[in-house]
Amino acid sequence: MTQVVTTVAELRAALALLKPARIGMVPTMGALHDGHVSLVTEAKKHADHVVVSIFVNPTQFAPNEDFDAYPRTLDADLKKLGDAAAIVFTPTAREMYPEGFATTITVGGPSAGLETDFRPHFFAGVATVVAKLLIAALPDIAVFGEKDYQQLLVVKQLVRDLGLPIRIIGAPTLREADGLALSSRNAYLSADERKIAASLNAILKDAIATARSTGNLRAAEATAIEALWNAGFAHVDYIAIRDAESLDHVTALERPARILAAAKVGKTRLIDNMAI
Amino acid sequence: MTQVVTTVAELRAALALLKPARIGMVPTMGALHDGHVSLVTEAKKHADHVVVSIFVNPTQFAPNEDFDAYPRTLDADLKKLGDAAAIVFTPTAREMYPEGFATTITVGGPSAGLETDFRPHFFAGVATVVAKLLIAALPDIAVFGEKDYQQLLVVKQLVRDLGLPIRIIGAPTLREADGLALSSRNAYLSADERKIAASLNAILKDAIATARSTGNLRAAEATAIEALWNAGFAHVDYIAIRDAESLDHVTALERPARILAAAKVGKTRLIDNMAI
Repeated sequence: MTQVVTTVAELRAALALLKPARIGMVPTMGALHDGHVSLVTEAKKHADHVVVSIFVNPTQFAPNEDFDAYPRTLDADLKKLGDAAAIVFTPTAREMYPEGFATTITVGGPSAGLETDFRPHFFAGVATVVAKLLIAALPDIAVFGEKDYQQLLVVKQLVRDLGLPIRIIGAPTLREADGLALSSRNAYLSADERKIAASLNAILKDAIATARSTGNLRAAEATAIEALWNAGFAHVDYIAIRDAESLDHVTALERPARILAAAKVGKTRLIDNMAI
Repeated sequence: MTQVVTTVAELRAALALLKPARIGMVPTMGALHDGHVSLVTEAKKHADHVVVSIFVNPTQFAPNEDFDAYPRTLDADLKKLGDAAAIVFTPTAREMYPEGFATTITVGGPSAGLETDFRPHFFAGVATVVAKLLIAALPDIAVFGEKDYQQLLVVKQLVRDLGLPIRIIGAPTLREADGLALSSRNAYLSADERKIAASLNAILKDAIATARSTGNLRAAEATAIEALWNAGFAHVDYIAIRDAESLDHVTALERPARILAAAKVGKTRLIDNMAI
């Protein structure tokens, strides 16, 4: 039986009944799909009980972004989770940010560039809410998707820097048969846009092959950007081959690298990334 | 027997042996005096065991401030504490800020103005290190001195905003017979400066009396500033009557208020404050 709780006090009371069993956590913004379920499955490998939080965090959206449109589907989310989660934590915005709330956590290092160039507010919003969610539940482990790869690295840096006694585990991206990474935002796509969207992952795979065969990482990025425009993307924010651990710029494939991309199909912004 | 530990891992291992007893914490920068001991005594009223941390935090000093000169007196500190602390946590700078450390916590609200006008780096340094110390020990309660009144309010805001499950308790300022607030920085004062320093508290008391009798808070502040100059202070950073809870500007004594001051005797910067 999954318990649904809406305040930190209820969450802690529910957890107190479960501990000292090992607790896992999967922070989400809801609109759950199989990718989220795979994160919960991963968490269950490392923990006795899993807390899934569902909170569409206003502070990680800019005023012009899709905070209002973001899908909120709690009933379907609870069905999707079935019995996989022991506790679902669905705080209100007021519970997370009470009157007079005035604290911001900024994480440097891997937050530089990429998403930050296009969503400068994003990682401070993510770091602050993730710190609060982790402090609320104090789990032993927490699982985040590699789909949001830069976010995963920022969360790891946050937890290491604050010394939170929590192991952060990254879990692989789930994809549709045509390669499109599962994302709650895929629901925004029209049928035509859905076809264009599928090319993103194929183009990343081509770019990886080009980077490996030619060793010219900048040319591989440029070719991929052109391919996205040709495939019908409305805007390409970035395609970048970076160090897989630090996200530093790299000029050669000497250490583990990662290719990361963000591009818009119509008005929908998609991100994807793959190991090189 | 007090245990002295230098890493977070050792601290947590030592705490694990003490819990589920209630843990209190008193974060300090060392150079302990009777004021610190009174904080430990206060902590023992609310907890079974007390952790005292001693860490001269580099990030709350500006390059031109007294980080290098700040007194470091561990042997004397341990003698001063006697058996009052179960654990003394003396991390190195590298333990608190490992290579690649990149996270900063900023707290708005009560951090605006006053100390921030003169030490703009200060509260981000304090908030980040206090969060890390509290997360390291996860005590039930922590005691901070009212001597650093604005800091006490910033720490309360930090703990409330992050939802740390820790009660923050403020403890009254201890004073010498002539009213000088106990402070590790009093050790910097020459005999002549020591005499000048004593007038700070007397002038605050006069200002409170004037504010109460005339109701003119700005005039009371101005008179006090002039009195400090006349007493031989080298510089007056501020004397301000503020709301005791928010530190907002106030024009009348309708709610609990506080008078706060910072001024330099020679090169030594002193702060003090009192309830109105």
